Amino acid sequence: MGLPGGFQFTGIACGIKPSGKLDLAVVSSQTPCVAVGVYTQNIVRAASIEWNQQLTPTEEFKALIINSGNANACTGQQGIDDNQTIATIAAKHLDVQENQVLVLSTGVIGQHLPMSQTASGIAQAISEQGSSRDHFERASMAILTTDKGPKTVESTVSIESGDIKIAGMAKGAGMIGPKMATMLAIIVSDAKIDTGKAQQILNRAVERSFNRISVEGHTSTNDALIMICNGDSGIEIDSADALKEFENAITENCIQLAKQIPADGEGASHLITIDIHGAADDQQADRVARTVAASALVKTAITGADPNWGRIVSAAGYAGAEMDVSMTSLKLNGFLVFEHGQPVDIDEKQVSQALNDQFETLIELTIGRGSGFARHWTSDLTQEYVRFNSEYTT
Amino acid sequence: MGLPGGFQFTGIACGIKPSGKLDLAVVSSQTPCVAVGVYTQNIVRAASIEWNQQLTPTEEFKALIINSGNANACTGQQGIDDNQTIATIAAKHLDVQENQVLVLSTGVIGQHLPMSQTASGIAQAISEQGSSRDHFERASMAILTTDKGPKTVESTVSIESGDIKIAGMAKGAGMIGPKMATMLAIIVSDAKIDTGKAQQILNRAVERSFNRISVEGHTSTNDALIMICNGDSGIEIDSADALKEFENAITENCIQLAKQIPADGEGASHLITIDIHGAADDQQADRVARTVAASALVKTAITGADPNWGRIVSAAGYAGAEMDVSMTSLKLNGFLVFEHGQPVDIDEKQVSQALNDQFETLIELTIGRGSGFARHWTSDLTQEYVRFNSEYTT
Repeated sequence: MGLPGGFQFTGIACGIKPSGKLDLAVVSSQTPCVAVGVYTQNIVRAASIEWNQQLTPTEEFKALIINSGNANACTGQQGIDDNQTIATIAAKHLDVQENQVLVLSTGVIGQHLPMSQTASGIAQAISEQGSSRDHFERASMAILTTDKGPKTVESTVSIESGDIKIAGMAKGAGMIGPKMATMLAIIVSDAKIDTGKAQQILNRAVERSFNRISVEGHTSTNDALIMICNGDSGIEIDSADALKEFENAITENCIQLAKQIPADGEGASHLITIDIHGAADDQQADRVARTVAASALVKTAITGADPNWGRIVSAAGYAGAEMDVSMTSLKLNGFLVFEHGQPVDIDEKQVSQALNDQFETLIELTIGRGSGFARHWTSDLTQEYVRFNSEYTT
Repeated sequence: MGLPGGFQFTGIACGIKPSGKLDLAVVSSQTPCVAVGVYTQNIVRAASIEWNQQLTPTEEFKALIINSGNANACTGQQGIDDNQTIATIAAKHLDVQENQVLVLSTGVIGQHLPMSQTASGIAQAISEQGSSRDHFERASMAILTTDKGPKTVESTVSIESGDIKIAGMAKGAGMIGPKMATMLAIIVSDAKIDTGKAQQILNRAVERSFNRISVEGHTSTNDALIMICNGDSGIEIDSADALKEFENAITENCIQLAKQIPADGEGASHLITIDIHGAADDQQADRVARTVAASALVKTAITGADPNWGRIVSAAGYAGAEMDVSMTSLKLNGFLVFEHGQPVDIDEKQVSQALNDQFETLIELTIGRGSGFARHWTSDLTQEYVRFNSEYTT
């Protein structure tokens, strides 16, 4: 497939993470290009989010600087100044304007960035950029925090006038609760597209991907998804057909990337897909899926391969959506356990075995009110999640 | 202090719980009397909840039958029939009408009640009723499920014309997420009061007590709080002053009872009190408190005595309430950690020690928008909670 041309990447370790792991990434375009973003709806936003919101959508994008290990959130005026300094330093080394530089940060909230390490890191990273797969992979690793491994996606989409390449990277693995976008994700493409159309496509793709995942449901201060299209393919996305093809491909790439986040959720032992059928409308289905995904009792039942399906049905009941219990049915990994409001006589051991044997769990709940549908993805909740998160900073 | 007179109680083991623990309780009044209830807002409701909703408020209450070990929820028509049978059997043994009998069930969802054990248990329990403290305590133990111990409260309130006695019992300890009432609680009093006024007092008391607690935030199918006032004291609660005194006492008893639920939350190692100050109004403060209380990241930080306060501030940020981050401040067990949007230079070890040393954690968050206030109580989230809930039914 190959990466989209005209981009450069890198990831280095500059000392923000005490562990010495990679913590600074650059994604840049050789020519000024389109960049659009979707950001957290949390009122408590990192300095980087405010910065990017002022600058996107843009047609003048040159570089994105991403640091992990420190969120630069809840850091007051000094945090705003530090973020500006990152853009200024990067602009100087790239010989561009600072408003052509976007910034993303992720990590611990409430601590100031170590700016001398960050400043020399930016200089080093920019000097080491390249367009190889190795460079791309190093960038995808430098954006991680508690993730077990990198999360990337790559595809080629055929439009009438030729092929468009798309690649993406994301980080998880905790503080994942979708309100517009979820944690950091970057999509690059060599498509040539107008900023307004790119923004619309990204907004809709987010609704069907990053906005449908959760780990523990805590919306981050630093959520951001940025899509960069540099036109390097020379292929213009402007006909209705091309726009549709491109949107489908972006959506599918976002879904593939988003699903990797709960699959690698902190301590996760199952990736849970939640399909809600028969809601009054798609919005109500979404509300039910979100509520089921947020229930610690549902998540721990899946952890223990426990077919305690009453937890799922009861979670749907308090989602604030219309529901006809006498028409409600539930399947767990294909096993019908509750049908039209009545428990089904199941072989609990067999269902438990099926939940235990597979990493992916499928919950299919039909709530008897209409044809509304929604699909969400979440992780289960394990002792390892609790252990990890009760030892995070100290 | 002494229990209110004119009531009888008991708790027995009839075989609903495979463990052989107490699982059937009776609370009855010697004379027909006032009973009012507040019930779960979950659309998926147990048969007992539908039954009680039709019968309360009432002035003809005679007895309340409570079983633990089985919720009789998601059990379709058979569940409705079984619940009716419980009332019929109890009415026969008490020589009253079945619509004078209320029913509460709690336990596993989606399984049918073992009716022959339940039927003979009701007969036995009614024959063993008594008004001693021992009888009251046995009842308070027979309503428990995963609780470590019973939860009771008792007080005397002085009204102008004499003393009123109040006693209460509640169960926790999981599936605790307040939507009107949370899990089972019963308040008995010897006050003489009109049903309408009793209902109003209970509704307001719930708002400030049971509706302000959570363990993991999952609203149960069986939540119910029932208050029974038999007039045995001969003291009529009708003047404005008496109504106010009585309401204060009921509210205080409800708060004392409610707080015992997260304090004994499944696996809990901390009881967390969350005070939100400075919201635009009390309703917005409530929303922020609820969101902070629901965050697994906040709860696990407290579990680990980790002063990772960014998790608290960021949870407030996605609560859907107005918030001025530059005017936001946070105290943890009295230590100021974030002031007017800026991190405070704290001794992390000292704050961690304070969190570790005390069972009760106090979170005081001020969000700089007005004078709205709310207080919630929740438990922390431990590995023991996860272990327990991934092994519950199978």
